[in-house]
Amino acid sequence: MTEHVFDRAIALAAQSDGSFLGHTSRAYGNMVGPYGGITAAQALNAVLVHRERQGEPVAYTVNYAAPVIDGPFTVQARPARTNRSTQHWVIEMLQQGQTVLTATAFTALRRETWSAAEHTMPAVPRPADVPLPAGEPPVEWVKRYEMRFVHGGLPATWDDREEALSRTQLWVRDKPPRPLDFASLTALSDVFFPRIWRRRASRVPVGTVSMTVYFHADAAHLAATGSGYLLAQAQAQAFRKGYFDQTAQLWSEAGELVVTTHQVVYYKA
Amino acid sequence: MTEHVFDRAIALAAQSDGSFLGHTSRAYGNMVGPYGGITAAQALNAVLVHRERQGEPVAYTVNYAAPVIDGPFTVQARPARTNRSTQHWVIEMLQQGQTVLTATAFTALRRETWSAAEHTMPAVPRPADVPLPAGEPPVEWVKRYEMRFVHGGLPATWDDREEALSRTQLWVRDKPPRPLDFASLTALSDVFFPRIWRRRASRVPVGTVSMTVYFHADAAHLAATGSGYLLAQAQAQAFRKGYFDQTAQLWSEAGELVVTTHQVVYYKA
Repeated sequence: MTEHVFDRAIALAAQSDGSFLGHTSRAYGNMVGPYGGITAAQALNAVLVHRERQGEPVAYTVNYAAPVIDGPFTVQARPARTNRSTQHWVIEMLQQGQTVLTATAFTALRRETWSAAEHTMPAVPRPADVPLPAGEPPVEWVKRYEMRFVHGGLPATWDDREEALSRTQLWVRDKPPRPLDFASLTALSDVFFPRIWRRRASRVPVGTVSMTVYFHADAAHLAATGSGYLLAQAQAQAFRKGYFDQTAQLWSEAGELVVTTHQVVYYKA
Repeated sequence: MTEHVFDRAIALAAQSDGSFLGHTSRAYGNMVGPYGGITAAQALNAVLVHRERQGEPVAYTVNYAAPVIDGPFTVQARPARTNRSTQHWVIEMLQQGQTVLTATAFTALRRETWSAAEHTMPAVPRPADVPLPAGEPPVEWVKRYEMRFVHGGLPATWDDREEALSRTQLWVRDKPPRPLDFASLTALSDVFFPRIWRRRASRVPVGTVSMTVYFHADAAHLAATGSGYLLAQAQAQAFRKGYFDQTAQLWSEAGELVVTTHQVVYYKA
């Protein structure tokens, strides 16, 4: 079986000092440097493959401190606190000795409890009934995902007409399909094009500065979800003085909320 | 002028090794140990008073790694990356040499840009038209806030009847009133009682494990807001296998979104 392009992209080599060595992936390239979602997944992977890890990711926050340059990087992941069934990680990614990313992760052994949904999946057409976008993807990483926009796709024309709401809904999965796991969900959490592009129909310069991912599914649940589509929904709450936020949800095709995620994004406008 | 109880609570003393020494505040005590909001504010304050800080907080994530014990604590705040107009901080709080909290913060110089609201303030009665809760606050920190519940207050009876939605809306401000700043907004971001108590009408054991705060107001904006009320709204999105999330908004009395915040909370049920 050939290794999936995503697995090649997030691969890390353990170093003798306890850190990990990785390399940016051309396959997940953005306009300049790599797609933020793959960088987030690479950094989380240092926890996922760490021999001292206990439990599964529940919360993960990644901060993009500087542009990641195409080439090698080092990830340091330190268990700052290990409790009986939970663990707190501090993560840093470096290039040429300089910090390009900081992150924290919380892992836990999850147990059966009373559970309930609250933010339920909106009523949307099935993936097969939603067409694929026409035209060639503008950047390389977009080719790594099958995206079927239900609502709020990229503006058809960049005419600066202002929209009242920035909501986007799409069915999305890895291309080629790949069973979901914590690393791929992390990358998928950043799959939305910038809310300000949708809101303003203008491609103003942007860059995510911080993203938080909460995992509502454990490994067993993800295994059952397999390589199916996710319904991904994102919306901004405020655009103010150079920064806007985004709140987003990812549901499995069966309608279960597997991830809630938020980010704050720099914009120049 | 007497120092406000909040300022006394978050006060830090610079140490010769660059760290800061603080002490938990009895005035913000919870059932056991301190209110999580005051702990988050104390940790952020190490960045706010840091001589190398540039810019104002835009994003802040705090992870509660272990119970904070009443007594002294140390905070280390390190500028992991300083760019031209932005800065990324890694923060750690320790007690007796052990990590009890990890955090990251992003600070930036904010500039005038095109700005817009998207999540607008719900229509609610004015603060003066919403009664104060009857009865004595159950824990000390609750006495430090004036809370006027518009919708979804603490269940009147703990009868395990299940509610369909966990939304809560309240007008809230420091008691006595205090001009808003980044530290007090951080503490206020954690002001909501646990969503699972609302949803299940049952006081199951809970504990926040991670909270993220996005600031949509800068210092000038906060100064203009003064010591007015905030409309605070919170709702869960999913409760699953021991953890639920909460997404929340804080609007100024004038209707401007000043903070969006999220957290993930452990529960036993």
